[in-house]
Order: sequence, then structure tokens, then C-alpha cells
Amino acid sequence: MAPIFLSIYDTTLRDGAQREGISFSVEDKIRIARELDRLGIPFIEGGWPGANPKDVQFFWHLKEQPLSQAEIVAFCFTRRPGKTAATDPMLQPILAAGTKWITIVGKSWDLHVTEGLQTTLDENLAMIEDTIAYLRQHDRRIIYDAEHWFDGYKHNPAYALKTLQSAIAAGAEWITLCDTNGGTLPHEIDQIVREVKAALSPIQIGIHTHNDCELAVANTIAAVSAGATLIQGTINGYGERCGNANLCSVIPNLQLKLGYQCLPSEKLATLTQVSRIVSEVANLAPDDHAPFVGLSAFAHKGGLHVSAVQRNPITYEHMSPELVGNSRRIVISEQSGISNILAKARSLGFNLDKHDPTCRQILESLKHLEQDGYQFEAAEASFELLIREALGERMAPFEVRGFQVHYDMMPESAPSRSYCGRARSLATVKVAIRGQEILEAAEGNGPVSALDAALRKALVNLYPEIDSFYLTDYKVRILDGTAGTSAKTRVLVESSNGIDRWATVGVSGNILEASYQAVVESLEYGLLLRYRQPTVQHSNIRKTDAAHCPDSAL
Amino acid sequence: MAPIFLSIYDTTLRDGAQREGISFSVEDKIRIARELDRLGIPFIEGGWPGANPKDVQFFWHLKEQPLSQAEIVAFCFTRRPGKTAATDPMLQPILAAGTKWITIVGKSWDLHVTEGLQTTLDENLAMIEDTIAYLRQHDRRIIYDAEHWFDGYKHNPAYALKTLQSAIAAGAEWITLCDTNGGTLPHEIDQIVREVKAALSPIQIGIHTHNDCELAVANTIAAVSAGATLIQGTINGYGERCGNANLCSVIPNLQLKLGYQCLPSEKLATLTQVSRIVSEVANLAPDDHAPFVGLSAFAHKGGLHVSAVQRNPITYEHMSPELVGNSRRIVISEQSGISNILAKARSLGFNLDKHDPTCRQILESLKHLEQDGYQFEAAEASFELLIREALGERMAPFEVRGFQVHYDMMPESAPSRSYCGRARSLATVKVAIRGQEILEAAEGNGPVSALDAALRKALVNLYPEIDSFYLTDYKVRILDGTAGTSAKTRVLVESSNGIDRWATVGVSGNILEASYQAVVESLEYGLLLRYRQPTVQHSNIRKTDAAHCPDSAL
Repeated sequence: MAPIFLSIYDTTLRDGAQREGISFSVEDKIRIARELDRLGIPFIEGGWPGANPKDVQFFWHLKEQPLSQAEIVAFCFTRRPGKTAATDPMLQPILAAGTKWITIVGKSWDLHVTEGLQTTLDENLAMIEDTIAYLRQHDRRIIYDAEHWFDGYKHNPAYALKTLQSAIAAGAEWITLCDTNGGTLPHEIDQIVREVKAALSPIQIGIHTHNDCELAVANTIAAVSAGATLIQGTINGYGERCGNANLCSVIPNLQLKLGYQCLPSEKLATLTQVSRIVSEVANLAPDDHAPFVGLSAFAHKGGLHVSAVQRNPITYEHMSPELVGNSRRIVISEQSGISNILAKARSLGFNLDKHDPTCRQILESLKHLEQDGYQFEAAEASFELLIREALGERMAPFEVRGFQVHYDMMPESAPSRSYCGRARSLATVKVAIRGQEILEAAEGNGPVSALDAALRKALVNLYPEIDSFYLTDYKVRILDGTAGTSAKTRVLVESSNGIDRWATVGVSGNILEASYQAVVESLEYGLLLRYRQPTVQHSNIRKTDAAHCPDSAL
Repeated sequence: MAPIFLSIYDTTLRDGAQREGISFSVEDKIRIARELDRLGIPFIEGGWPGANPKDVQFFWHLKEQPLSQAEIVAFCFTRRPGKTAATDPMLQPILAAGTKWITIVGKSWDLHVTEGLQTTLDENLAMIEDTIAYLRQHDRRIIYDAEHWFDGYKHNPAYALKTLQSAIAAGAEWITLCDTNGGTLPHEIDQIVREVKAALSPIQIGIHTHNDCELAVANTIAAVSAGATLIQGTINGYGERCGNANLCSVIPNLQLKLGYQCLPSEKLATLTQVSRIVSEVANLAPDDHAPFVGLSAFAHKGGLHVSAVQRNPITYEHMSPELVGNSRRIVISEQSGISNILAKARSLGFNLDKHDPTCRQILESLKHLEQDGYQFEAAEASFELLIREALGERMAPFEVRGFQVHYDMMPESAPSRSYCGRARSLATVKVAIRGQEILEAAEGNGPVSALDAALRKALVNLYPEIDSFYLTDYKVRILDGTAGTSAKTRVLVESSNGIDRWATVGVSGNILEASYQAVVESLEYGLLLRYRQPTVQHSNIRKTDAAHCPDSAL
């Protein structure tokens, strides 16, 4: 049987941007649109030109330099009550955006019409019909988003259906049923989509769900099973409150589990990469536990799992991670047995024997360090250095003999926010390389950047490749000590040389000390990479412009 | 119609603890067990005594000081191949744990028997039957977890059913069907649960799902609709890979949306609190976007939403947040209109008029600061100070006239992890209070703690209440500057006085500077709280022991 084709409609740039903490620049939006275009998404909702000058610029830019395959869609409400479509100034920027497709959102729920818009039910029908008809006169193709569809239909099905009939009569090609408040359950979605299809056939139905009941993905699947063919959602499920339907889960479920055709297979295999790029552009930490695309989605921790999955992946993996561009990961932790250490070491290119006392020694160090607050699950470079140390294979490209940091701030006026960036930090560092001591000093915007700068200055003559290293992320976590133990700080540093990316960890009661440890290991590991053929892909994230985080930040 | 009663079975302490990054101490486990007991959860799986000395201690402790209503359940695999139940040393610690209920997990999937356990299919049946019969002889009540049930049943239904028949024959009272790899879809769960019920009636069925397809909650609901009555899951959905079924979503869906009875209503109204306590004990940042219990689950951002939701909550809320102990939140951001600012100010106890020029002024400051990298969504105390400043109502309890921080480290030996905590930081600070200048110096484990200590030392004589303030969290985020802009650091500080909890924000190119801003505002806000009747609950999280994070960490 030939697969059923579904049209994916991404609204990361409009509804996704409603998530608290997201604030896309025009450049961010363009970068994400190009990624979605490359992924093969057919519809990309770009925003509401007119509501926001950034969105006007965005559409203008894409008119000048179009996408390769995707339709960029402009979004707007129906005209306002008491206006005509031609005279409502809101609609002119929509036409000016110059897109072939426009999504018009209108009210389905009588309560929203009378209480929210404070107009009559008939005027709402006219608003829908006029707006769409006017845009159709200008040769635009229309998707109609029925806002609050499911709640509206439950309260007043006859009126709700009339709103759709108005949209269809005026020329809408798709009717998207929206669960705007996110409170609808899968069996209700299934039933209502079937009823709408039966009542309005042969119109094409779309679905737009929110995750307020942790059911957005299930609701989308339910709608598709009931006949919906346009699938709205966002990358990583970004969206206000609890988010929108997560396309990174919706697409693999529909395509790999249910046999629908959403994206070409080779594009689907870039989904993990797109997910991570979007989270970086959004400046949000990726969710390691995200289904399909998360760092831990195919991680194996228990000793039993690890040995079994290596014999036969199907036993502990519901699908092959490569299908979505993710990869299997063996997690190292205190609870790990010898078999995990062996497997991890093997994946790093070391062939350890189970009976080798080094194995036990690594396990012991690991336990000891984890009790001190270290975690190697997200700091694989530090773990590799640990293994190398145990094997006597750790290079010591340099040795830090000491450092000092000094910071001085004398504000001139009272309000606490007035002297940002005024003060500077100074660091001195003493390093020994091949017996030779080097003393260097450097300034930085912050103490860690001053320290990092002084270290680089001391090392760069002998190791010029250090010039290509940069920090991509810096995370600080306060470890909650139990009573009597003084609390500690764990610092995680991610670095890149433009090709590889690696993470190191430092722990101390002192944030500078912890940062120092992580920065020193990061430099050491970066140097190590240059002196060997990589035996493993240390991360499947490649450098993107968005990942660039100048070290001056620290 | 009388509601159907469901039995909730929490496995946060066992399967939840498999999540990367979680490492519960015995005290952590006891604290969580007591919270779950208070919440009214009838079954709490405590762990696998014998696999782990911590778990032995945990069960011993709860035998000495029992829970008030919950059954604590010990967990174990079936006996090993070739042993007898009485001679397998694994089973003795399970009996020693002294629980009334024991969960035994066994293999359902023939592939796992022959490839994983490397034994015969018949021996696996004997392992299940022997183990359960042996524990029944010791008067234990048994829940049987059928591992990999759905995959096993799909591959070899006849054999899979035999494993359940063995468990039932030996005296298991509940059969929990586990989607161990998390790859099963709701329609499959529905069908298979119905088939099992039909084949094995009248046995009671349980469900245990994982979130690998972002469908764990939907799968649990599907199983319940098909007749399952024992619901396994974890608080916050913690668990390995993508987590387990999230009880914080499962319970509200089943009880509030579908009419099942899981918990007494007044207990359900503490769910948000339990969710946050568990995340604090687990030392994981709470997921603000979590359905039902997240900080943003009932947040309103757009101006239209905010005014509508205030007129009639049903228009933009799928349920009343109070039912799960959460609350509505109005979010302040650059995109906010005047109506949001007014609503927020009102919730803080300020009655601003829409036409008051102060409103526009606050909006302008907000835009300006957000462009600089500030975010007030999670720093409501800083936002309140901003409003007070605009209204001329900001107290200035003290003024910082300058500070210096010095840090010195001279390690004695090379390995980078050997001098943790050796070095110390020194800070001097000059503060003016009511015209009087005070210069103080203090040491700390880190630069921020030294600064914080020096500030407190300078202030405590005049403001003795400062003694009761402590930092509960400290978060650092590197802001990715676009090209040409130097990157910045945003620091978020959460503080408490044992009753209230508040958050402040600082932004700077320098981490010390940003931390300083947040710490200074935190002290100022704490002092402000003492001088007024609280007009609003600043957070619905109360202090817990777990939240205590000594300031010496910074």
C-alpha cells in the first residue's frame, strides 16, 4: 500500500516563540527557517507581519532570498469587527509580506466571540468570510486556523461548524483544528476530527495541539488516524505554557512507526541536528531527555542493558537511533559495572581487558570522584583523561604552577545596574612546559576569561592550535551538600575547535577553582585531539554559528 | 455512576532513580517516600534491597518508622536460572526487607530469555513460578512486572501469555504490563491490554510505560481505558532515557478529566508542591514547562490572553490551576503590553492607572533591560524593585560604594584535581548606610561567597534580619551575543528567609559583576519583605530542608 503523505507545518517561529525565555532576532528566524527548509518541511509559518517590525523584516528578507523548497506562510487574525477587509490596516502588511500562502486564524467558540471580541456571532462569520475572500482576490492560498476549536465545538457544535463553513465558502484550502488551551484528550480529538470530516467532506483537515495535558503528540497522532493531513507543531515542542506538539516526536512516530510519509528518509536522519541547532539559536539548553533527539534518548546505564544491547540492539532499543540522526550512548556513572567501563573505553578506542586491574582502578576513581560531586555523564572528555591517566597514557602538555585573580569595582553612582562592564579582571598564571616556566598575565571581562586568556597566552607559542579553541558553553551548578558537608560548585565547560566539540568538568567549593579545573582539562583535551586520529565522534553536534560563545563572557 | 478506583504505584525511588544525574542518598529516599505517603499514593516501590546497600538501609529505616498509609514495595528479579528460589541468595534480602508487598519482574519476551538470560523458555516459566510461590509461602503479596511485555507479546504472544499464567498460578495478585523500551503506541496498548484481560480474566492488570515516543502518558490512559487498574509511574516523569510515565500528568488527567478516583481531592491539590520537593531532593531544576505542575503551566503572556483570562478564566485555561496546587501567572516580558504590566503590578499590590505615564516608563525600562540581556520572567523580585523605582517607592536600605575580590591559588602538585578547596577568596566592600560608610572584608570559599559575606558583615549590625537570609539557588547563563556584541553572563539568584522565597537577576560581561548585582538586589528585597505585609505569595514553594544551599558554595 502506498504511504499516505502528510504535510508538516512548522510554527516554531510564531507559536514556538511564545515560550517564556525565547526572543528570536531577525537573523535567528532566518537561520531557523533555512534549517527547516533543508529538513524538507513544506510549510514554515514565519510570523505576523504588522504585529512586529522584526517579522516585516523577516518576510522582506525571504522575499529577496527565497527558501529552496518550503512555502513561507504569513499569519494573521481575521479582520476586526466593524471594519471591512480592505480597510482594516492589519491586512495590508500581510499582503505586503508577499507570500503565496497565508494562515488566517479566527474564532470558533461562541464565548470568545461574545466575551472576547465583544461582537455578534454573525459578525464573526462575516469577519472570517470577508478576510479570506479578500485575500483570495489577491491570489493568496489560505489555511484557516480554527482557534479554540475543540472547546468551541464541545460548547456549541452548530455554531462552530458554521465558522468552518464560512472559511470554506470563502476559499480556504485547509481547515486546521486547534486545541488552543491544550485540554482535549486523544479520544475526544479522534471523535471530533471524524465528525468534522464527515460534516465538511472533502475539505482537508489540519491539527494544531498544545501540551498542557502532556498529550500533544498523542493528540496529533489521534487526529492523523482520524484523517487530518496537515500537521502543525514546533521543533522541540517550544511554545507557551507547556509547549506545542513536538515535531521532533510527531514526525518519527508518524513516519517510522505508523508508515505515513512526512519527510524524505535522508532528511529525517538530520532531525537530531536540527533539534539541537534550534535549541542553540533559541539559546535554550537542549533537553537531554527529549524523545528521539535527546542526548539520553538512546543511553544505556545498567550493566545488564549495556551488554545485551551490544549483542542485539533490538532487545533494549525501540528503534535504530540513526534513523533520526541520533546515536547510542553508554553512560558512565558510579552505578556502572566493569562492563560499562569496558564498553565506554572501547568506544573511546581503548581495548581494556575485564581482568585488567586498571579496570577496577578506574571504577574506584570514578566512585571517589562522583562522591566528591563530579559527574562524567556529560563530561566525556574528562572521563577520557581519567582513563588515560589510569593507563599511564595521559599526556601532560603543560603544568599549571599557580594562578591569581584580581577584580576591582568602584561604582560612581548608586543604582545597581549602572556600571555593567565597567570593571575588569586581571589574572596571572605560571605554567611549566617541558621544564620551562612561563609567567603571563591577562585581563578579561570576567575572572574566568582573564584566567583563560592568561593560560592561552602562556601556551600559544608552543601550541599554536590553541588559537582555534573556543568555549561554547559554561554551566554552573550548586551541589546541595548534606548537613555538615560544605556545598560545592560543579562547572561544566564545553569547547570546540570548529570541528570537534568536547566537555570537561570541574568541582570545588570555589567557583573559580572549579572553572579553572574544567578550563585546564578542556585545553589539555583539545591538544590531545590534535595529536591523534579521532577514534570516535565525540558529539554529533557540529559547530554552528549559533554555538559560538565568545570566551570573553566568562 | 460511582467512580472507578485506580491504584497508583510510584517507582520514582527505583526506576526514576535510573535517570542520568539522579543519585539519591538514603535520607533523600526517605524524604521522598514520606512525601508520597502524605500525597496518598498507595504503593511506593522503594528499590531492590540486596542490589544496593543504600536500599537495605532504606527498608530497614521504614520498618522501624513506618509510613502512615502507603505500602512500601520491595523490587526484585525472578530467581536466576539453575538455582532454586530458596537457595538463590538474591531473594533473602527481599524477605529481610520485611515489606508486605513485593514486586517481582520477569521476562516476557522469548528473545530476552534465550539471548539475554541464555536459558530455556521452560526454565524462565519455572523461574517466575518458583520465585512467586516461594515468596507467597512467606506470606508476601505479589505484583508481577512483565518486562518487555508489549514487544514480547508482539513477537510471540503464546509464550508471553504463558509467562503471565505462570505468575498467576503461583499467586501474583496484579500483572503489570511493561513497555520497557517505550516504543509502543496507544492503539497497540489499547488492543493488547484488552486481549490480555480477555485471556486472563479476572486477574487485575497494571501498566508501566516509558516516554521514548513522548507517549507515556497517553499509553497509560489507553491502558486504563482498556481496563488496567494499577498505574505505575514516577514524579516528574523521571526515569532513564526519556523517562517514565509522569504521575504529575497521569493523575490529573485520570482524575480531573476522566473521572477516575486516584487520590483524595485535597491531596491532589498538593501535587505541585510534591513535584517541586522531589525535584529539589533530586537536585534537578524543576521543568518550568511541565504540564499541570510547572511554573509556566498556567502562565499568560500575550496581552489579549491576559485581559481575557482575567474576565473569564475558562477562555484560556483548560482547568483551574488550584486543583493541582498550581497558580495562574502573568508573565512580564518585552512583548508585554501595558495591560500585562498593570496586571502584574496589581498582583504585587500596586494599583497603577493605565494612563499613568509611569506605566509607559516601566515598559520602556523593561524593553531596554531585556535588550541588555535581563529577564524578569524568573526574577520577580527584581521586577518588583523596578516598579518601585519607577514609582519612587524603592527603599535604598544601603548603597554599595565599591568592592574588590582577590583570589590566589598555588598548587603544590600537578594533577589538576588535587587542590580542591585549598585556595580561598578575599573580598572587601564599602557600603554606605544612612550617610555612614562601612568598610568590611571577608573570606569565602569562592569570590561570590566572599563578597556576600563581606556585604552581610557590613549590614548585619543595622539589619540583623539579614542573618536569616540564605541563597537557595544560583544559576549562570552565558548569553550568546550576536556578532559584534560582546557576550554577557546572566546570573539568577534565589534566596529565602525560611518563609518567603524570591529571585533576582544580574547581567554583565563579568560573572562577578552580574553575581554582585543579583546578590545586592536579593539583600535589598529581603529587607523590603520584612518591612511590609506580604501582598502576594512570591512562590508557592515553601522552604524544605532539601532547598537549603549554604551560601558558602558561591
